[in-house]
Amino acid sequence: MSFQNPVFIPGPTNIPESLRKASDMPTIDHRSPLFGQILHPAREGVKKILKSNTAEVFIFPSSGTGGWETALTNTLSAGDKILAARNGMFSHRWIDMCQRHGLGVTIVETPWGEGIPADRYEEILTADKGHEIKAVLATHNETATGVKSDIAAVRRALDAAGHPALLFVDGVSSIASMDFRFDEWGVDVAVTGSQKGFMLPAGLAIVGFSPKAMEATKIGTLPRTFFDVHDMAKGYANNAYPYTPAVGLMNGLNEPCKMLLDEGLEKVFVRHNRIAEGVRAAVGAWGLELCAASPDVYSDTVSAIRTPAHFNATDIVTLAAEKYGVAFGVGLGEVAGKVFRIGHLGSMTDVMALSGIATAEMCMVDLGLDITLGLGVATAQEYYRGSAAMTQQEAAE
Amino acid sequence: MSFQNPVFIPGPTNIPESLRKASDMPTIDHRSPLFGQILHPAREGVKKILKSNTAEVFIFPSSGTGGWETALTNTLSAGDKILAARNGMFSHRWIDMCQRHGLGVTIVETPWGEGIPADRYEEILTADKGHEIKAVLATHNETATGVKSDIAAVRRALDAAGHPALLFVDGVSSIASMDFRFDEWGVDVAVTGSQKGFMLPAGLAIVGFSPKAMEATKIGTLPRTFFDVHDMAKGYANNAYPYTPAVGLMNGLNEPCKMLLDEGLEKVFVRHNRIAEGVRAAVGAWGLELCAASPDVYSDTVSAIRTPAHFNATDIVTLAAEKYGVAFGVGLGEVAGKVFRIGHLGSMTDVMALSGIATAEMCMVDLGLDITLGLGVATAQEYYRGSAAMTQQEAAE
Amino acid sequence: MSFQNPVFIPGPTNIPESLRKASDMPTIDHRSPLFGQILHPAREGVKKILKSNTAEVFIFPSSGTGGWETALTNTLSAGDKILAARNGMFSHRWIDMCQRHGLGVTIVETPWGEGIPADRYEEILTADKGHEIKAVLATHNETATGVKSDIAAVRRALDAAGHPALLFVDGVSSIASMDFRFDEWGVDVAVTGSQKGFMLPAGLAIVGFSPKAMEATKIGTLPRTFFDVHDMAKGYANNAYPYTPAVGLMNGLNEPCKMLLDEGLEKVFVRHNRIAEGVRAAVGAWGLELCAASPDVYSDTVSAIRTPAHFNATDIVTLAAEKYGVAFGVGLGEVAGKVFRIGHLGSMTDVMALSGIATAEMCMVDLGLDITLGLGVATAQEYYRGSAAMTQQEAAE
Amino acid sequence: MSFQNPVFIPGPTNIPESLRKASDMPTIDHRSPLFGQILHPAREGVKKILKSNTAEVFIFPSSGTGGWETALTNTLSAGDKILAARNGMFSHRWIDMCQRHGLGVTIVETPWGEGIPADRYEEILTADKGHEIKAVLATHNETATGVKSDIAAVRRALDAAGHPALLFVDGVSSIASMDFRFDEWGVDVAVTGSQKGFMLPAGLAIVGFSPKAMEATKIGTLPRTFFDVHDMAKGYANNAYPYTPAVGLMNGLNEPCKMLLDEGLEKVFVRHNRIAEGVRAAVGAWGLELCAASPDVYSDTVSAIRTPAHFNATDIVTLAAEKYGVAFGVGLGEVAGKVFRIGHLGSMTDVMALSGIATAEMCMVDLGLDITLGLGVATAQEYYRGSAAMTQQEAAE
Repeated sequence: MSFQNPVFIPGPTNIPESLRKASDMPTIDHRSPLFGQILHPAREGVKKILKSNTAEVFIFPSSGTGGWETALTNTLSAGDKILAARNGMFSHRWIDMCQRHGLGVTIVETPWGEGIPADRYEEILTADKGHEIKAVLATHNETATGVKSDIAAVRRALDAAGHPALLFVDGVSSIASMDFRFDEWGVDVAVTGSQKGFMLPAGLAIVGFSPKAMEATKIGTLPRTFFDVHDMAKGYANNAYPYTPAVGLMNGLNEPCKMLLDEGLEKVFVRHNRIAEGVRAAVGAWGLELCAASPDVYSDTVSAIRTPAHFNATDIVTLAAEKYGVAFGVGLGEVAGKVFRIGHLGSMTDVMALSGIATAEMCMVDLGLDITLGLGVATAQEYYRGSAAMTQQEAAE
Repeated sequence: MSFQNPVFIPGPTNIPESLRKASDMPTIDHRSPLFGQILHPAREGVKKILKSNTAEVFIFPSSGTGGWETALTNTLSAGDKILAARNGMFSHRWIDMCQRHGLGVTIVETPWGEGIPADRYEEILTADKGHEIKAVLATHNETATGVKSDIAAVRRALDAAGHPALLFVDGVSSIASMDFRFDEWGVDVAVTGSQKGFMLPAGLAIVGFSPKAMEATKIGTLPRTFFDVHDMAKGYANNAYPYTPAVGLMNGLNEPCKMLLDEGLEKVFVRHNRIAEGVRAAVGAWGLELCAASPDVYSDTVSAIRTPAHFNATDIVTLAAEKYGVAFGVGLGEVAGKVFRIGHLGSMTDVMALSGIATAEMCMVDLGLDITLGLGVATAQEYYRGSAAMTQQEAAE
Repeated sequence: MSFQNPVFIPGPTNIPESLRKASDMPTIDHRSPLFGQILHPAREGVKKILKSNTAEVFIFPSSGTGGWETALTNTLSAGDKILAARNGMFSHRWIDMCQRHGLGVTIVETPWGEGIPADRYEEILTADKGHEIKAVLATHNETATGVKSDIAAVRRALDAAGHPALLFVDGVSSIASMDFRFDEWGVDVAVTGSQKGFMLPAGLAIVGFSPKAMEATKIGTLPRTFFDVHDMAKGYANNAYPYTPAVGLMNGLNEPCKMLLDEGLEKVFVRHNRIAEGVRAAVGAWGLELCAASPDVYSDTVSAIRTPAHFNATDIVTLAAEKYGVAFGVGLGEVAGKVFRIGHLGSMTDVMALSGIATAEMCMVDLGLDITLGLGVATAQEYYRGSAAMTQQEAAE
Repeated sequence: MSFQNPVFIPGPTNIPESLRKASDMPTIDHRSPLFGQILHPAREGVKKILKSNTAEVFIFPSSGTGGWETALTNTLSAGDKILAARNGMFSHRWIDMCQRHGLGVTIVETPWGEGIPADRYEEILTADKGHEIKAVLATHNETATGVKSDIAAVRRALDAAGHPALLFVDGVSSIASMDFRFDEWGVDVAVTGSQKGFMLPAGLAIVGFSPKAMEATKIGTLPRTFFDVHDMAKGYANNAYPYTPAVGLMNGLNEPCKMLLDEGLEKVFVRHNRIAEGVRAAVGAWGLELCAASPDVYSDTVSAIRTPAHFNATDIVTLAAEKYGVAFGVGLGEVAGKVFRIGHLGSMTDVMALSGIATAEMCMVDLGLDITLGLGVATAQEYYRGSAAMTQQEAAE
């Protein structure tokens, strides 16, 4: 009887029917021209979603973590210096990866719940007269805390410092759901996966490299083979891969690209914001706080919700799964037990979101929290009904 | 973006994943032993769900309406007399079919919202000393009004009158969701389809014939070929069909039979009752009435909800589809515009039901009804959280 | 390990991937405008495939047999006279259906292996001065014998006799695979199903009614409800059905219509002819005869192959299934045990056909027939390689 | 119209229906106990297929190439010495990966078409008194040449030399299709993927580590994060992953494990050998040679077939794709243009193999090679019909 309820984890998302079908494909020869008809449009589609005219897009049978590794190992050398803020579990893990690859990381410790402090970046970069820092990491959307950072500000920090470091952005839980501007923000490597804004099953690391990042690949000496973008580029030029690609998922990838571009990216972002606003309205009605410190950093793809002191937020997630068959996200790292997360990205509708809100309410009441059943739902309903604009035309799609 | 919200029509239901897959099947030779391995277990499974040791089960590529025609044309002759109550659109249509096939129907007009008046049946049958009435029709669950009738009482009426008429029961929207006792109630022909309690796509008429009904097929002279149960029985004896069967759907049919019997029929009925009770709790909180006149006739598969006078209930259905992408059922026939219907059968969960209730609330408020947002939801939440017993074990299934 | 080999039964055919997917659909509200977007294009597509500007197309959750019943019960009355040739199992069954519905059939017994004797039809129709014959049946392609009849000649017979009888054509195994001209041939009712030329799973009866046939529905008094075209037409006018339609299959039906019309009907017919010619070349190489008496009646969708006297042709079919996991068709009725059938319709390729030919060869040698392994294959290969014209463009589709 | 013909590339294979379905799965929470029910049986199943009681199995969202990298980066350090034979494109690529990761490779150049010269390995290992060689690479089945190597002999070489080096085996195109004995052969790391013997879509690297290899992971200092087996092991202990796993493919992986173990591994190997023998019989009948130098190295999963001098073997592959819609494999590296490859692994049947053989014949004749149509087919037919033992029971599965 499972599979009937939506999932509310911050990715993998609920998979739309047409994406399920496009990804579930019989075997074709991945060394034939047929494969080129899948590969090239998928890369083009991603490029448009990145809002880039210059990015070279690479797609690995991997995950977002593999995308991080692609960014690092193709452009950097052992001992290189990195600048990064740690403000959640995913920025933490990327930093950890840097260290394990022998990179020296200047870590800007940032409260979990706040965004990247671009001013601190600017200070550090300005102080780095010798330009020892080769790359700046920025997690656009911290999935662990539901915090969005201002990438344009990070770019301004680099520019203000006149610093040539590469800008690597983790857009795993933002790209295709929230505004992302590869070219305008001067991003050098953008990293995402198939299972978030693209709404596909997990299994693809999707990365975009700027011309400057491509230049850096000629210098970087970290060992790499599986994630080597040159092998990949050489393959692409022949409609092929350096190894066996995940053809079905790549075929699938064409579908969300088409869907999202047809819908219009700005509408996609507005749609995500609307669903998120409803969830946040419910959180407010519950008298709870978001982990995200202020509205300017609220994520439109995931909300991490702080529960009262002396309450184990993870109990909500466990109970929701066991009693109601609904999946929420647990708190990770520093906020483990302190927050639970509601993922609201991808093809989630207001109607689906309401069932998640209603379930969270039931769990919280079941666990003795002082919550009035229906109150969060009512507040979200009020917001959703006021902001809904689905026309018969759209409903029919 | 559609297909993400559940449907709340009273059938076809939301189709569980495993049933989708079992029904979507490559071509096999339907004249091979392989087909027998699909056919016979499906018929056995249906028999168990009918709670019958004696029924002969026939499965036609058709719909419930085809099942009605199977019942009539195999057992009756032009001019035969029929007794039937009209208490909703579906009982009305079956009566209409009788008339179009040249049968004389004694119609017991019954208020839409009430169940079959077994006492009236008894009077009429008792008065029919010559036993001219050959068959009694009974719609177990009037899908149009959300009204369940007491089939055991109809059987008692026949017995009390000492009347030999056949008992034909339309169990389209009850079988496999609500208690149905073919043998115990002395049902002669039971009719259902694939798309309700069996949760499959529409496309199969499923009927059970008692030994007495099989006897009657030797006498009935109404013309029939496609729906002839003798041709069907002859085919079955050879692992075959008199024509091309809908193999995929029949393969699919094995899946819900297995699922429901594994769960236990009584648990299935309790599960349906629980989901229905939550919906009814919301209706009460809204201050609205069910079309069903009293609790003893409340259907556990569909609720028809009366809206205030001078309000067009169909507007709710239209708005839900257009604005929220959610499907409810409209009122039909006498209650068109007066009720809207929430289907809650099949694999619907409490979580899904809450999203339907929340959507109905939004629509009613949008349309100016005096409804407090969240109130119906809260009442249903309270009921659901009190009655939920999903264990991790079950959640994992 | 099954499902890997193609099937070679004369329908249901191997189902192309995109048709599997289009038919496997989540539940939508079949009373919503969404359904209209499936229904109307499907009906329009069928009409074009019938090569008709005037036909009214009806689609029933049923089978070809249901289509026959639709033709008869909507237009005729008990006691009406019918003219029909019996030249195979399927023409026989349609005649049987007429008789069971109280129609008087003038049967033109025709050797199994020959087409409809249009001259005999003309004699009988000319002799029927009182125009008691209300309908003429014609099986366009006798699936049991692999015999195509000349429907244009049947129309000429009617015209030459100046006879107003309706012309009903069973195009179950011809429509969408072989040339069919509803308007040009003056067909009044054409009958087919989803599982042959349309390459879908079984489950739909698809019929076209001419304006003249629609007129006749006002006169015909045979009882009908499930197959009533007036109820159907009334439903269609409201994007709906008189009962629950098989939505998934109807959605699926749009796909082959699109595919075949995009390919071009004449190309579709040439493609079928080419595959059939290869099979026939193999049969010739084996020194065997077709059941079809002469090239002008050779079917391009199925070949019934006569085996030597004192040999049970059914053994080939049984052995192919048991030893090689391949499905051929057995002989039916008069030719049971005398022929086995290779279906070669739908999306069958030359490559697939060769595997069927190779399998038949192995079976015949296994069973002691005097056949040289590889000879039929070689002859078919020679034909196929000479006639293949698949371009990279097409291969890529 | 594509997707109807089988593919004859040496992986990804044709995907059995049940594997397609098991891999195509709605989203579940990959941090829930539900995921553990997928993860652990999949790892256990792989272990059994490796014939190991001791291997620790790791599954990465990646490809076989990622499996190679897992083997190297987890156990070795920059500057470590490796011993490897180069006898085809895939052994070449693994060597190249070693070099790119700063490992010093002693390359035993071996004619493409021959297996690993275990005696040369023994000489070199014996000469390595200081045990500088840390790992020995062995490609069990060279997919490029269709050559199987004797891994037991490689183990004996290590043992005879008393050398402690780790034994890394590339079993990408052998495991689950040909006999593989992890424990008996003293394999330390075995590498495969989802898309060969496991018959799934590409997307998983599957590796087994011996206890000795796990020990080595404590010493190896090559940088690694994505492919780190410790992170993976830590995740597994909590039913989880260090990042988002490809849940659908892992669910799918349970299916071939179950199928193959139910069939019995020895039967699986015999089945592959039988299909391969038929293909080789055809090659012999064509008067062509295999790239594989002698019967003891013939691969049962892929045959690389040498074409006459001055003929471009790749033309066959191109023509097969363009004209017949059939995929064969091209020659790679040293044998590019000199061989074409027929993959015959996975769920391929004799009937499917015959269609591949027939297609290859047509292409060769089309391209002017002196081949008699049907001769290769006939020889394979003779072999297949003599060796087939499919019973009705099995056919029905």
